[in-house]
Amino acid sequence: MLVFAYFTLSSSNQYLELVLVISMDFVLKGVFVLSLLMVSMKSQVDARYRHWSNDQKKSIFEAGEDLVTNLPGQPSVDFRHYAGYVTVNEKNGRALFYWFYEATTFADKKPLVLWLNGGPGCSSVGYGATQEIGPFLVDTDGRGLIFNSFSWNTEANLLFLESPVGVGFSYSNTSADYDILGDDFTANDAYAFLHNWYLKFPSYRNRIFYIAGESYAGKYVPELAEVIHDKNKDPSLFIDLRGILLGNPETNDAEDLKGIADYAWSHAVVSDETHKTILESCDFYSDDPWSNNDCNSAMVELYSQYDEIDIYSLYTSVCIGNNSSGSQDKSTLLTAKSSTKMLPRVMGGYDPCLDDYAKSYYNRPDVQKALHVGDGISLRNWSICNMTVYYGWSDRKASVVPIYKKLIAAGLKIWVYSGDTDGRVPVLSTRYSLSSLGLPIKRAWRPWYHQKQVGGWLQEYYGLTFATFRGAGHAVPIFKPSESLAFFASFLSGESLPSQR
Amino acid sequence: MLVFAYFTLSSSNQYLELVLVISMDFVLKGVFVLSLLMVSMKSQVDARYRHWSNDQKKSIFEAGEDLVTNLPGQPSVDFRHYAGYVTVNEKNGRALFYWFYEATTFADKKPLVLWLNGGPGCSSVGYGATQEIGPFLVDTDGRGLIFNSFSWNTEANLLFLESPVGVGFSYSNTSADYDILGDDFTANDAYAFLHNWYLKFPSYRNRIFYIAGESYAGKYVPELAEVIHDKNKDPSLFIDLRGILLGNPETNDAEDLKGIADYAWSHAVVSDETHKTILESCDFYSDDPWSNNDCNSAMVELYSQYDEIDIYSLYTSVCIGNNSSGSQDKSTLLTAKSSTKMLPRVMGGYDPCLDDYAKSYYNRPDVQKALHVGDGISLRNWSICNMTVYYGWSDRKASVVPIYKKLIAAGLKIWVYSGDTDGRVPVLSTRYSLSSLGLPIKRAWRPWYHQKQVGGWLQEYYGLTFATFRGAGHAVPIFKPSESLAFFASFLSGESLPSQR
Repeated sequence: MLVFAYFTLSSSNQYLELVLVISMDFVLKGVFVLSLLMVSMKSQVDARYRHWSNDQKKSIFEAGEDLVTNLPGQPSVDFRHYAGYVTVNEKNGRALFYWFYEATTFADKKPLVLWLNGGPGCSSVGYGATQEIGPFLVDTDGRGLIFNSFSWNTEANLLFLESPVGVGFSYSNTSADYDILGDDFTANDAYAFLHNWYLKFPSYRNRIFYIAGESYAGKYVPELAEVIHDKNKDPSLFIDLRGILLGNPETNDAEDLKGIADYAWSHAVVSDETHKTILESCDFYSDDPWSNNDCNSAMVELYSQYDEIDIYSLYTSVCIGNNSSGSQDKSTLLTAKSSTKMLPRVMGGYDPCLDDYAKSYYNRPDVQKALHVGDGISLRNWSICNMTVYYGWSDRKASVVPIYKKLIAAGLKIWVYSGDTDGRVPVLSTRYSLSSLGLPIKRAWRPWYHQKQVGGWLQEYYGLTFATFRGAGHAVPIFKPSESLAFFASFLSGESLPSQR
Repeated sequence: MLVFAYFTLSSSNQYLELVLVISMDFVLKGVFVLSLLMVSMKSQVDARYRHWSNDQKKSIFEAGEDLVTNLPGQPSVDFRHYAGYVTVNEKNGRALFYWFYEATTFADKKPLVLWLNGGPGCSSVGYGATQEIGPFLVDTDGRGLIFNSFSWNTEANLLFLESPVGVGFSYSNTSADYDILGDDFTANDAYAFLHNWYLKFPSYRNRIFYIAGESYAGKYVPELAEVIHDKNKDPSLFIDLRGILLGNPETNDAEDLKGIADYAWSHAVVSDETHKTILESCDFYSDDPWSNNDCNSAMVELYSQYDEIDIYSLYTSVCIGNNSSGSQDKSTLLTAKSSTKMLPRVMGGYDPCLDDYAKSYYNRPDVQKALHVGDGISLRNWSICNMTVYYGWSDRKASVVPIYKKLIAAGLKIWVYSGDTDGRVPVLSTRYSLSSLGLPIKRAWRPWYHQKQVGGWLQEYYGLTFATFRGAGHAVPIFKPSESLAFFASFLSGESLPSQR
């Protein structure tokens, strides 16, 4: 098998130019074998540390070198936070960047929650930590941070991972790695990351653990949960995973697409005529719905209607700055692949203005030094979404519904939420996907409340809880910070959301 | 035929207690004959004034006694406004209250626009003038008025009518009138009002004329337009009606109901299960869809989900004051009639807090005196919606689609708009109704712009223009004042809305 690769990695824009002739099956198999080897090797390492796992007092010292002490613009806080790299594959030089915030109180008693953003290709630091649920949000002038009093680390120890390599600060020294990114690769590297991260933070080794995420992490989260569930058969690898939490998650391509179409029509984004064409010509369950020209052009028409509004939040204004490229980029993203089998799956965030602030902040030398990304002289170019990763995604599960079934059978707690003004992974898509699970209803549809207002609606199934957030876009916590935090607390405690004012 | 009526009219709460045994066909026929007589009489009176109609300079003096000069809390303005009564039936003592604002500039050149709110039973003064498109909005402490720089009287002379009798300050001295209120009665009285109003304002007699309104005025506006169109065959009665403008209008009961159901489901207000039951059991085109118990209880379930959010604006908070009766009233309104043939058609406004401010203001003695409602000592009890009128509505057209067809054939300009976050007369209802017209498309669905943002979407048919307002609730101008004014100007000029940023 011939493998020939030429690449340049520009440090100024992190753009990968790849001219690559490669035998894909070889690479995929290779990655699989490497992953297994890696996980196997790590499991031996982990075993050495298992006797430390109950000694929580020691934990804070293990990762001392990753402690963040002088982050520019950071508000003063009572909790510690850590950032840095965890190597997931020594041979190829793959290292994932994390940012970990201890809980604000009783950190040693609270669970550990891993947060993942999607894309594929987008940064959990840039979205989750910086714009949504982390304690420090970038302020709108890009010069510092503001404190988020609705940070989810009031309820849990909060771990943000930039995943897979190519995303944010995460990298590989082996260029071929970038060409084989996909769902399995991501799950296996995230699994390796977890075990190696526990080496730095052994007091969390046996801590109650949850995985949360949104958007394309709707795939990542169950996929990683499945790997953990499967590996847990080996007691030396056991991770105390109790559940998963998914926000506006991509779940099942066919139903996600049908939901996009029906939602756009019912929300007056497309015409009756376009919707009718989609209903008549699109077979989203086929291998290639785009082979039907009517379907293809109707979907192109649908995406074009989203060109100049924010598909991630239908009723907010779009950022129109001096440089309106944000909007243009989004349009390109949405339509570029609509004539191929795979519809575009764009990033988890929504506001090109906020994205710009994050980019400005994380590309500061002093910030990178404080986060242990580098020495503060030779910079890594950080972007909120890596489009090379996005476009090059080579392995994608069409549906994670079978994984849901497996995890439900295993007794994991699964909560799914949906901001109902998102057109990208609309509430209809999620309902179509959940409906396909055929779960019996435990407690029927009802409103849930927060601060005397209806936060959204809730339906509890045996095995799964589904909740909507009224008036929230794709990245729910941006729109509903207080409601989201209350919801997160309910998820952790397992208590139902309030059903009265 | 036996007619027996007993009534009390309480001045403290304007609540009509009617114990009425009456032969309905007699009354309806009587009203019809009276209406014809009245119109006929007025036409003779009108004819006397026709030679004045081109003398615009005289106009401002004709209604001098209705000039409003000392309205409490009114901001200083450069235009005149008039308020008072116009008798529509002398024998029965029926008089309708109006409030008329000259255009801010070039009043003698600009068209005359009549604005109607719906209910039935709700006040155009309380909603249209006070909360939406008038120059003076009540402020939130109920003590005065604030200036609305997006008032539609920057583009037209603006006439608000409280219609029919029983609404706002409008009254009849004949109690039996209150028992025969309905669509035709309303249209005929409004027609009589117009001719008699022209006697006060003769310079407007031949002015270009439009009728606008929202919600249940979706019935009133075409119905009045039809009366005018029909009567215009008599040159002495001619009114220069050029078009109608309808916002979130009730149009066709069957399609309005189907739209409510589909909208509630697609906007995550009701469950998949409830929607499925509605789809399977409700025949909205039958005479009595509620005879099917499954349909009935599914629709009750649907309305109950709207109990504690604002059906008129899905994503805003509801007013929760010390007295939460507003919400309770709304709930009662929504569900009270769901087991009868006629589903409730509630009022055009949406914020019980704003409603309270209006009620406080218009029940002040000095305000009533300034508006020529009374002498400032014996008060009329003003309420924003008269629920006796609402519940007693006796004559209702199930559909005004045939009137649309007639008016389109007559060459009238018809523009329909829809705030797309309204669950009461949702954008889907309006699209279903318009679709039933089967009009050819002149210019296909596209976004329209205001201040560089997408204001909504637009479809131009031959004979009708339809536009949505993105993120606006039921009473669109409250949510989108600047966009609404630009839209109104486009309607008047007949120019398309901007199709570029």
